[in-house]
Amino acid sequence: MKAPGHKSIQHHSLWLNSVLDTCLVDKIENRDVMPELAPSMRTAVPGPLTNSTKEELDTVFDARTVQMVIDYDRSFGNYLVDVDGNTYLDVYAQIASIPVGYNNPTLVKAAQSPAMVSALVNRPAIGNFPSHHWLNLLRQGLMRVAPKGCTQVVTAQSGSEANELAFKAAFMAYRRQQRGSATWSEHELESVMKNQSPGTPDLAILSFKNSFHGRGFASLSATRSKSVHKMDIPAFKWPQATFPQLKYPLEEYEQENQHEEDRCLQEIEHIIDSWHCPVAGIIVEPIQSEGGDNHASAQFFQGLQVITKARAIYLIVDEVQTGFGATGKFWAHEHWELASAPDIVTFSKKAQTAGYFFSDRNLRPDKAYRQFNTWMGDAARVIMSNAVIDEILTKNLVTETARIGDILYERIADLANRYPKYIKNLRGKGEGTYIAFDTVDSSSLLKEMRTLGINIGSCGISTIRLRPMLIFEEAHIRLLLEALETAFLKLDGSA
Amino acid sequence: MKAPGHKSIQHHSLWLNSVLDTCLVDKIENRDVMPELAPSMRTAVPGPLTNSTKEELDTVFDARTVQMVIDYDRSFGNYLVDVDGNTYLDVYAQIASIPVGYNNPTLVKAAQSPAMVSALVNRPAIGNFPSHHWLNLLRQGLMRVAPKGCTQVVTAQSGSEANELAFKAAFMAYRRQQRGSATWSEHELESVMKNQSPGTPDLAILSFKNSFHGRGFASLSATRSKSVHKMDIPAFKWPQATFPQLKYPLEEYEQENQHEEDRCLQEIEHIIDSWHCPVAGIIVEPIQSEGGDNHASAQFFQGLQVITKARAIYLIVDEVQTGFGATGKFWAHEHWELASAPDIVTFSKKAQTAGYFFSDRNLRPDKAYRQFNTWMGDAARVIMSNAVIDEILTKNLVTETARIGDILYERIADLANRYPKYIKNLRGKGEGTYIAFDTVDSSSLLKEMRTLGINIGSCGISTIRLRPMLIFEEAHIRLLLEALETAFLKLDGSA
Repeated sequence: MKAPGHKSIQHHSLWLNSVLDTCLVDKIENRDVMPELAPSMRTAVPGPLTNSTKEELDTVFDARTVQMVIDYDRSFGNYLVDVDGNTYLDVYAQIASIPVGYNNPTLVKAAQSPAMVSALVNRPAIGNFPSHHWLNLLRQGLMRVAPKGCTQVVTAQSGSEANELAFKAAFMAYRRQQRGSATWSEHELESVMKNQSPGTPDLAILSFKNSFHGRGFASLSATRSKSVHKMDIPAFKWPQATFPQLKYPLEEYEQENQHEEDRCLQEIEHIIDSWHCPVAGIIVEPIQSEGGDNHASAQFFQGLQVITKARAIYLIVDEVQTGFGATGKFWAHEHWELASAPDIVTFSKKAQTAGYFFSDRNLRPDKAYRQFNTWMGDAARVIMSNAVIDEILTKNLVTETARIGDILYERIADLANRYPKYIKNLRGKGEGTYIAFDTVDSSSLLKEMRTLGINIGSCGISTIRLRPMLIFEEAHIRLLLEALETAFLKLDGSA
Repeated sequence: MKAPGHKSIQHHSLWLNSVLDTCLVDKIENRDVMPELAPSMRTAVPGPLTNSTKEELDTVFDARTVQMVIDYDRSFGNYLVDVDGNTYLDVYAQIASIPVGYNNPTLVKAAQSPAMVSALVNRPAIGNFPSHHWLNLLRQGLMRVAPKGCTQVVTAQSGSEANELAFKAAFMAYRRQQRGSATWSEHELESVMKNQSPGTPDLAILSFKNSFHGRGFASLSATRSKSVHKMDIPAFKWPQATFPQLKYPLEEYEQENQHEEDRCLQEIEHIIDSWHCPVAGIIVEPIQSEGGDNHASAQFFQGLQVITKARAIYLIVDEVQTGFGATGKFWAHEHWELASAPDIVTFSKKAQTAGYFFSDRNLRPDKAYRQFNTWMGDAARVIMSNAVIDEILTKNLVTETARIGDILYERIADLANRYPKYIKNLRGKGEGTYIAFDTVDSSSLLKEMRTLGINIGSCGISTIRLRPMLIFEEAHIRLLLEALETAFLKLDGSA
């Protein structure tokens, strides 16, 4: 069956050829505007060069997870070009981590700056011997976008590390409350070296079923998404609570959903009050991403904060995937209008660096060297982050993402009416481009979409999650929607 | 008391002024040879600008650990220049992590390359969408220096992460041996999501008293250096064994030391065989660094390997601090002449990136996505690592470090004869510049050395550890020795 729109996706390839040859990274620097690419397929997916490179790579580096081998010098903006010369509209964006497009000229400029060269070549132990530029780097970058009420930042290198450093801050602050002004006892000093209580206390972080917080041993203890992430890895005996399972469309299930959220809040209180050890904090994603793009209402999160405040424990908001604009606010938790700032907000991915902001001064340890490591982040990646922030603020990309997201949502809602079999439980209304829906068989749909030149991601059991960059525009919506419809028709044909 | 050599350390400051002004990073790129700096002090340490910058930084970033604020644009080679204009010979090198000098021209070139710009701007999810350059990056860099017998590499971003990924590999491989060809059972699949056995097994890594393996929750569980690193942080109930406590000079205590090492090996066997859960691996530093620069003989490490082989558990050699040449071999474990390659060798610091090499194919998990995360390292830092490797191999810096280390050791041994009060238990003979000694009060000595323009590091209880870069030369030995003597005399005077 010939699908509408199929032709428009395919017919750019000749024009594309000539465009691509001008896209080498070293030529991009002085251009303000690059010609827009378009989806264009030259080979099957994965193509022969991806396959042979993958095979060769596998001799020194586990390459079983490789989906395509990419020619980043030819990729630009929303478009990814693989080694086989196929061009994809990228609405997955490196697992939701590319913020403002491949070879973004502002980022290229930052990468070529003398400050960057110095940060790369003279990597300091930031905690001991920071560069005299470090303070300004933080002020002119990350601190400009610090969540309201958060006055301090701790830098890290990955989302997992950010979450684990946040856990450490919560544990130290919790024990400080218990200990009061007492100094460390002999018993504590001696037992801690044996990993025994009281120096090494039995404390927990509560997380939610289907959550993903990373793959370090503590972040993985909090992660509850998939067995393949966790199997055979020792974990802390920490509690998990049910994350609200909302029914869609929300308008139709208002009361049921509210009841569900109330039930979950009660369960959380019960778990905290009955767990075998003290729960020092709760970690929560504003939208459970790897776990299936599960949303909850602002009221639910307000309720969470009430619970943590009442018990003087810490609320850690994991904005590793939701932060930096994709939900139509810079931070997703801004949608909640909390009574006061979250205690800790962690970030990574689109930030292109990682770390956490915090609002409560007690979350700074009472002694130096308790939250410390050799590198404490990477100034080179903080410079890139600052360029991302510049680009987002200068070009109003958060507002723009909110606007584009509303249009995108409406278009998909229309498509859902026509293809209810393939688009179920559409979610993300009013949350920028952070949109998802359940489908029959996400992996078949993914594969079809790739053959149509759209790189798209899945999550949960059979959910399609859209993770376009912040530079996704109306023209891209059209391409995405055309391809989705083509794919649905194809899947119908092959069913 | 006027000390010999004091003048030679101080009189370069005018000449230095003019040199420094030409050292800005953007001017360095086209020079092959930079004029050598020299220690030169303009202010007290820490200077007024360090103090005010530190205070200001502290408003957004915990700055209590800051020792000096550095002007990296003016630092070069073995010399560090602070914001107050003081120039230090740096024998601490960012906690042993700067390999080939500040503003090294080869590294500057790598930092300015088009490949670097692309790696910074287009950061991929390497496991899913690697660049077509990734394979060559690994082959031409890290794989060139892979420990003998190691055929695979896993990249990471820090020493802690490298060690934790190694632990995960060991745990998965251990369970795979137990499970045989059986697939994951329903019971495993269900229990793992609750952090319960059998899916989440109770397995341990054995480490040593006084060891340091990082500050993540699992690496910190293995770390046993100082209470300030561990206090209040939940940990796994893992065992610690005694690391041999050798007596110096080694020639005089040959029999006693051998007895001590045999006793430790027996203790390890006993612990493994009686621990409350299976021990899946042993992690060991070739030289316990943070813990006080504690050495053991090649025979001890051979014995460790015999123990792990006999029990089919894994030997993880933590070369985060010892790797990349400082001991006069590229990898410190080369000194041991093991019967076969260690199962896993972790690296970071001087590598300027991080990860682990492994030799046993079973250490690659049996399924994809078990050892995975979004970024899986950072190609930008791997490019820097490759430049470091080029520099080390082209300039024979490992051999050179062995040669310089021998001279340095002899000179310090001479000094020890004259100042036995300040230099005790000198160690590191034949191990490059990885030299250390115990002293009366390391923190006073450190402070004195800084006022003399030498940045030096300590570890353990009162140990001075030398961690010069691989470009440390005979001229620097003279400066270091003169300053040490001056400091000893000063400390004597003030005592």
